[in-house]
Amino acid sequence: MEQNLKEKFDNFSPTDYRYFVEDLKPYLTERAFIKYKARVEAALVKVLAKFKIISREIAREIVQAADSITAEEVYEEEKRIKHDIRALVNCIRNRVSLKARPYIHFLATSYDIVDTANALRYKDASLKVIIPEMIRLEKTWMSLAERYKDVVQIGRTHGQHAEPITFGFALAQYVNRWGNRILKLKEATNNLVGKFSGAVGAYNASSLFFNNPEEFERAVLSEVGLNPANISTQILPPEPVVDFYHAIISSFGVLANFCDDMRNLQRSEIAEVGEEFEEEQVGSSTMPQKKNPLNFENVKSMWKVFMSRMITVYCDQISEHQRDLTNSCSQRYLPEVLVGFTAGVRRMAKVSSKLQIDKTNMEKNLRMSEGLIVAEPLYILLAFQGYSDAHEYMRKLSMRSLKDNQSLIEMIKKDKNLKPYLEKLTASQKEIIENPSKYTGIASKKVEVINKLWRRKLELGE
Amino acid sequence: MEQNLKEKFDNFSPTDYRYFVEDLKPYLTERAFIKYKARVEAALVKVLAKFKIISREIAREIVQAADSITAEEVYEEEKRIKHDIRALVNCIRNRVSLKARPYIHFLATSYDIVDTANALRYKDASLKVIIPEMIRLEKTWMSLAERYKDVVQIGRTHGQHAEPITFGFALAQYVNRWGNRILKLKEATNNLVGKFSGAVGAYNASSLFFNNPEEFERAVLSEVGLNPANISTQILPPEPVVDFYHAIISSFGVLANFCDDMRNLQRSEIAEVGEEFEEEQVGSSTMPQKKNPLNFENVKSMWKVFMSRMITVYCDQISEHQRDLTNSCSQRYLPEVLVGFTAGVRRMAKVSSKLQIDKTNMEKNLRMSEGLIVAEPLYILLAFQGYSDAHEYMRKLSMRSLKDNQSLIEMIKKDKNLKPYLEKLTASQKEIIENPSKYTGIASKKVEVINKLWRRKLELGE
Amino acid sequence: MEQNLKEKFDNFSPTDYRYFVEDLKPYLTERAFIKYKARVEAALVKVLAKFKIISREIAREIVQAADSITAEEVYEEEKRIKHDIRALVNCIRNRVSLKARPYIHFLATSYDIVDTANALRYKDASLKVIIPEMIRLEKTWMSLAERYKDVVQIGRTHGQHAEPITFGFALAQYVNRWGNRILKLKEATNNLVGKFSGAVGAYNASSLFFNNPEEFERAVLSEVGLNPANISTQILPPEPVVDFYHAIISSFGVLANFCDDMRNLQRSEIAEVGEEFEEEQVGSSTMPQKKNPLNFENVKSMWKVFMSRMITVYCDQISEHQRDLTNSCSQRYLPEVLVGFTAGVRRMAKVSSKLQIDKTNMEKNLRMSEGLIVAEPLYILLAFQGYSDAHEYMRKLSMRSLKDNQSLIEMIKKDKNLKPYLEKLTASQKEIIENPSKYTGIASKKVEVINKLWRRKLELGE
Amino acid sequence: MEQNLKEKFDNFSPTDYRYFVEDLKPYLTERAFIKYKARVEAALVKVLAKFKIISREIAREIVQAADSITAEEVYEEEKRIKHDIRALVNCIRNRVSLKARPYIHFLATSYDIVDTANALRYKDASLKVIIPEMIRLEKTWMSLAERYKDVVQIGRTHGQHAEPITFGFALAQYVNRWGNRILKLKEATNNLVGKFSGAVGAYNASSLFFNNPEEFERAVLSEVGLNPANISTQILPPEPVVDFYHAIISSFGVLANFCDDMRNLQRSEIAEVGEEFEEEQVGSSTMPQKKNPLNFENVKSMWKVFMSRMITVYCDQISEHQRDLTNSCSQRYLPEVLVGFTAGVRRMAKVSSKLQIDKTNMEKNLRMSEGLIVAEPLYILLAFQGYSDAHEYMRKLSMRSLKDNQSLIEMIKKDKNLKPYLEKLTASQKEIIENPSKYTGIASKKVEVINKLWRRKLELGE
Repeated sequence: MEQNLKEKFDNFSPTDYRYFVEDLKPYLTERAFIKYKARVEAALVKVLAKFKIISREIAREIVQAADSITAEEVYEEEKRIKHDIRALVNCIRNRVSLKARPYIHFLATSYDIVDTANALRYKDASLKVIIPEMIRLEKTWMSLAERYKDVVQIGRTHGQHAEPITFGFALAQYVNRWGNRILKLKEATNNLVGKFSGAVGAYNASSLFFNNPEEFERAVLSEVGLNPANISTQILPPEPVVDFYHAIISSFGVLANFCDDMRNLQRSEIAEVGEEFEEEQVGSSTMPQKKNPLNFENVKSMWKVFMSRMITVYCDQISEHQRDLTNSCSQRYLPEVLVGFTAGVRRMAKVSSKLQIDKTNMEKNLRMSEGLIVAEPLYILLAFQGYSDAHEYMRKLSMRSLKDNQSLIEMIKKDKNLKPYLEKLTASQKEIIENPSKYTGIASKKVEVINKLWRRKLELGE
Repeated sequence: MEQNLKEKFDNFSPTDYRYFVEDLKPYLTERAFIKYKARVEAALVKVLAKFKIISREIAREIVQAADSITAEEVYEEEKRIKHDIRALVNCIRNRVSLKARPYIHFLATSYDIVDTANALRYKDASLKVIIPEMIRLEKTWMSLAERYKDVVQIGRTHGQHAEPITFGFALAQYVNRWGNRILKLKEATNNLVGKFSGAVGAYNASSLFFNNPEEFERAVLSEVGLNPANISTQILPPEPVVDFYHAIISSFGVLANFCDDMRNLQRSEIAEVGEEFEEEQVGSSTMPQKKNPLNFENVKSMWKVFMSRMITVYCDQISEHQRDLTNSCSQRYLPEVLVGFTAGVRRMAKVSSKLQIDKTNMEKNLRMSEGLIVAEPLYILLAFQGYSDAHEYMRKLSMRSLKDNQSLIEMIKKDKNLKPYLEKLTASQKEIIENPSKYTGIASKKVEVINKLWRRKLELGE
Repeated sequence: MEQNLKEKFDNFSPTDYRYFVEDLKPYLTERAFIKYKARVEAALVKVLAKFKIISREIAREIVQAADSITAEEVYEEEKRIKHDIRALVNCIRNRVSLKARPYIHFLATSYDIVDTANALRYKDASLKVIIPEMIRLEKTWMSLAERYKDVVQIGRTHGQHAEPITFGFALAQYVNRWGNRILKLKEATNNLVGKFSGAVGAYNASSLFFNNPEEFERAVLSEVGLNPANISTQILPPEPVVDFYHAIISSFGVLANFCDDMRNLQRSEIAEVGEEFEEEQVGSSTMPQKKNPLNFENVKSMWKVFMSRMITVYCDQISEHQRDLTNSCSQRYLPEVLVGFTAGVRRMAKVSSKLQIDKTNMEKNLRMSEGLIVAEPLYILLAFQGYSDAHEYMRKLSMRSLKDNQSLIEMIKKDKNLKPYLEKLTASQKEIIENPSKYTGIASKKVEVINKLWRRKLELGE
Repeated sequence: MEQNLKEKFDNFSPTDYRYFVEDLKPYLTERAFIKYKARVEAALVKVLAKFKIISREIAREIVQAADSITAEEVYEEEKRIKHDIRALVNCIRNRVSLKARPYIHFLATSYDIVDTANALRYKDASLKVIIPEMIRLEKTWMSLAERYKDVVQIGRTHGQHAEPITFGFALAQYVNRWGNRILKLKEATNNLVGKFSGAVGAYNASSLFFNNPEEFERAVLSEVGLNPANISTQILPPEPVVDFYHAIISSFGVLANFCDDMRNLQRSEIAEVGEEFEEEQVGSSTMPQKKNPLNFENVKSMWKVFMSRMITVYCDQISEHQRDLTNSCSQRYLPEVLVGFTAGVRRMAKVSSKLQIDKTNMEKNLRMSEGLIVAEPLYILLAFQGYSDAHEYMRKLSMRSLKDNQSLIEMIKKDKNLKPYLEKLTASQKEIIENPSKYTGIASKKVEVINKLWRRKLELGE
């Protein structure tokens, strides 16, 4: 639950009472949306003045009006006339002189304003909140990876013990995948564009006044810091927004994977990691002894909620002819995805920063299989020496070791077939056969490589 | 936009500022949820008294406390202890005497309360609001179908003119599909169950006191009007809720289809139907002449939003062992689907009740193709008389009619090959060849049949 | 991999080389589809003869032709004329006398044939293969549940040890959920309907010859064993097929949950169950010691493949006006879902029937937590005796037990606060406090109840 | 249906009998997959020789064996040992001398081979078939856009007539969106990587022989033309493949939108475009006069099939710890998405290249609304001149024009209020008011700009 929880108990959507992200309010609430739309209307009149269509004075008057309108009055007006942008325009109108009125929204169609405002606020939310939060998590994971780069852990494939790694190495996977997603989101954010091409995208209205209406469009958008789409209809081509949400959703998938890993490592029988438990926290209403991985469960659950929304995003790629309005409601649900994702990232950063590691259990679990771990390097070393059926031989030996509950290492040492081969091993090879926890390849070094790589790519300094 | 719009501009989710359904507040808000959970806690102590585990007096004390707790205090407590049900229990505790305290939540696990409360409020919302709203729409469609049962309209397949139907017949399809979904939702609602089987579903705790703990469970659930699941873990088997949401989402699909049909019939070139336009309503912020099918577009858009959520519902069928908590957040988003659906149903009922039909355009559009319509009955009548390649003959004649822009009816009359066949037709068959708008089969009668069928099945009286 | 694997290596879809289900060939291949469509064409002429539209002789001639056409010739013809049903009709035509030709496909539209043939083959596949396979798995799970009804296992919630159950009780959950899905699929299968209402559903063509064309429709469909839809357009109302696929997909979810449970119980650290390993089987290409839960992983993976297809099914609820053809390709992909599901069910039945249980590990894992398990019953028994803050007291004691690595049972016995309460316990209550593995409620009995219930509901006999 | 249809009637999946793409066989069939895996095994031994681990002679022997193995023998072996990669290895073993045998698959884990082979064949399929096909469609659309850049068409928003554009301008939207997707797919293709880091990704095995095992990995992958992942587990980080499929699916969405536009423009009442109809083609089995937009319907339907598969792709981002195998089956279904997409692209290229335009109908439809079109420019020009309530005035005038069925242009000319304003218009502004089909902004010029832009970005030459 967020610190700044707003207790809106009469809401239906949990986004606003449980997963609220205060920092995103300036961008993603309905109030914020109206502000952004007004900002685009203001940008328009500023540029109209630059292009000498209207006087500076009129522009100033409208800009001031646009800055001061409130969500409440816009909704009041919308109730009356059933059109959201016209309602906004009327509210601005009511605050300016008669002579300024005709120039509000001049040459614009609703979606010049709406689509541009959306691109703008997604961009702001991304650059000012989401990406910084992602980077905070990235750094947390980097330090964890660094801290645990030499702590040996059994690697698990299919839920089965495989070969040893280090815990830091396991975390470095997430450092890498997450860093990669941050770049993807940055790229998608930078590709967000605006439009000012009118009701069907052909600059029909602005061509009445400008020989080069694209220049005018560029000027308006540049006023708010966006590039124009190459071409548009009444609305923007949907793909930049689709890519943006793909970046978000595919990032959420990385979080979900991390949560599943941690949940499993927290199982009673494995118990290698734990969420920090606060003093007063209750694990179960009836079983006082429980310590549940609830943050990891929660973020996995959020992924299930938001991942499916890509279907809606893909459906919204289709808009008939110069646009239909079947993306009106669906578009309004998009900001929530950003809120849910940010809430998830934050929760992960918080819980990761306090992640508790149980090295004793890590070692204990590793030791369970240390006999068997040796099977792989030995088979390889045998094969290298030309033992023609090494894999099959080791497989049968392993099976026997399991069945008879015998130490595979001991069986190997006693095995007459293997003796001549064992004698040819180098010292470091022998060491691994005798102490399989050394069999971690370059796990530790890899942590450093990855941390360095992403520190550079994400420009995090040293 | 809802009449009772609550102007919550600082929300992220549009569910609470644009698609709010006032009537669902008593069931589906967070405040309502807490009330429902308290109600289950109350049912528990009532039954404990019945089974003589506690005194009636203690039960009464707890019931009163449970009735009076507020969402605000529960959240305050949850912030402290990070457990929602224990927070609720603590709030009730604080309001009762020392001797009553131990019996609050007695023998229960959190999800005995949570899952039962959810089943209960879904059921109430369904029976008290959603199904009545669906029936209201059904009745509206029934009257429209009845009213227009004889208004001939060209049937369209692949967007192409096919054979004639009546507009009422087209609507009767929706009466039938919608009636069928109402029954499906009723069935799914009735299948919702509760549980009182404890932390892992084996009645571990209640077996400490009862020889037949299932009897105790039945009594508690019967107190709130639910049946128990056949068996459960810490949580209910998910399928009843999955079926319930399938009933909702598949009903939404019927709405979406209706919207697409109406949107298309409202196209400028077709113009057979229209949404009623209010006097002050604005069609476009820049094109004053526009009358857009915005309600149909909007509900189609809502379908895109909520349809995809079935993925989350299907994902939540999986809960490891006796439960994991990865459905915590996702479950909290379920009520919103009911709100969105109800908002859509209402909007459809409202706009359907005022649907405007343009019979002139229906007739005009039909006449466009009347020459070609005749091709089918004629091919069939020819075939019946043994004309061996009737389909191919008519296909070529049609193509020629199109290419030369000639009336197919005239071509047929002049065609020497066809003459002997035409002479053998009955009077009513001849009438159809000459006036293809009679070629509507039993469209009109079918409207009556369908209306009668669903009036009976849904027990709507006459 | 299926026994009857057809080695079609030049295929792109793994359905046909890895997940092939030989028994479904008579229903769900393209060849089977053509046979079914021909069967509907045959039913039509039989009924035409019954209604005296054509002679019995002509009907017989066409029925014979319909029985003998091959997929190859139909495709050859389709290549020429680009219409699949007309191609089928032409192929039948080529095999009959001139005088019979006009009556093939008489009064029918393509989708009278296609939709009816699909309903028919889905129904056959369901009743003859899918449901029997599901019942086979149900019986397997029933015997497993019966066999292990008294084998105590620690119950797990959030991946954490909770209260004890029995392994048979855990399996009984699946017996119940699966039985419930079998009934759901049966119901959905029985609701599949056909149509014979012509090009726009108004019986336009058949009304040329019959006063009661619905009677004629009923007769044709009854010939193949189906009921007619209440009303239809060119195509059937989509909901019965949507419900049918929901029944399949929601059943698949139960399998997926079972797979996840088993995969987790097979983890190296838990090791309570195992897939039987064949003598020659290789666990890993490089790690000879591995025994992976590959069948459980595989079926979970299949669920991911097929679950998402419900989106397509929901999208196909929308067909404009009297139909559009945007369900043509998507409808062709539906049978594959049935194949994938059946392959999954079979694999589960096979692997379940050989499921290996490690009772030693079950006991060992249970014992890990036996100290803590006692916390719940004790807290309840304390509460019952009026200990006002029992939950909190036990929570703190448990925490201390964990921190100090002390036996909770011993701590309890020594605790002076608890002494007076402990003395008041009944014998059976005391037994549970001292031997928490007795704390399984009615787990064992519940297995019998559930098996009996589903044996009755599914009419499985004794 | 594909030209090179393989008549595989005993298949369940339509991918292999209806949507087969012959050109993709070398990359995406099971046979191709085995070839690719063998190619990676061959690359490995070549590099082993380079690094002096084995002799060139042995490497050559293994490479030859790897080149010659067949899918049939691998499946035969897999049946026996139940492990696909070990089966492949065994088949190669059987073809080489005793002394070469140990070095096959040396130091590799299965997924070093599988994941690398998949990345490789996706890359080849993309670069050699998919992108070239996409470019073919892009060029087709470019020529269409160029050809129709000056053909005026009414722009449509909400299915309603809005302002005029040109048909070429409408097509240029697709040129732009499609070009953008081609770049996205190129980028995603180039980001596909391979791995050679062993069973848990830490280079455990290769570290037995190399001080710098990453150098060895780079050498093996460079042999097949891939870069290594920054870090990997047993499997590759999933995101590059997720991005690749996002590029495919979001491209498919552009096709789907195009199909919907064309289907709608082909409606009987609109009839501005048509699919070319072949001489022998049958439109309807019962209505000989029909000309259906079946290719557009078909590709829209394919989009519904494949779009939903992103859910599976997103689910496969999660793999527990160093991997679980729950992506085994789902990964095998991925190539089919590429086949379906390519089939769709081809079909669109074919049907687009023969797209028929009916300029008469375009003009007729435009004329329907020409009176109303004038409303926008006039409102703007009035506003510019300071008419303070121009929008509202024009809205009411339009409404009246509709209600009274009067020409808006005539009403405007007669309107005394407007007269002083009209007199101040420039010549070109007046021209637009009088001939609204001139009101197309820079539609025509924009076509040239867009074609030029994408010719450059896609390096298509002049």
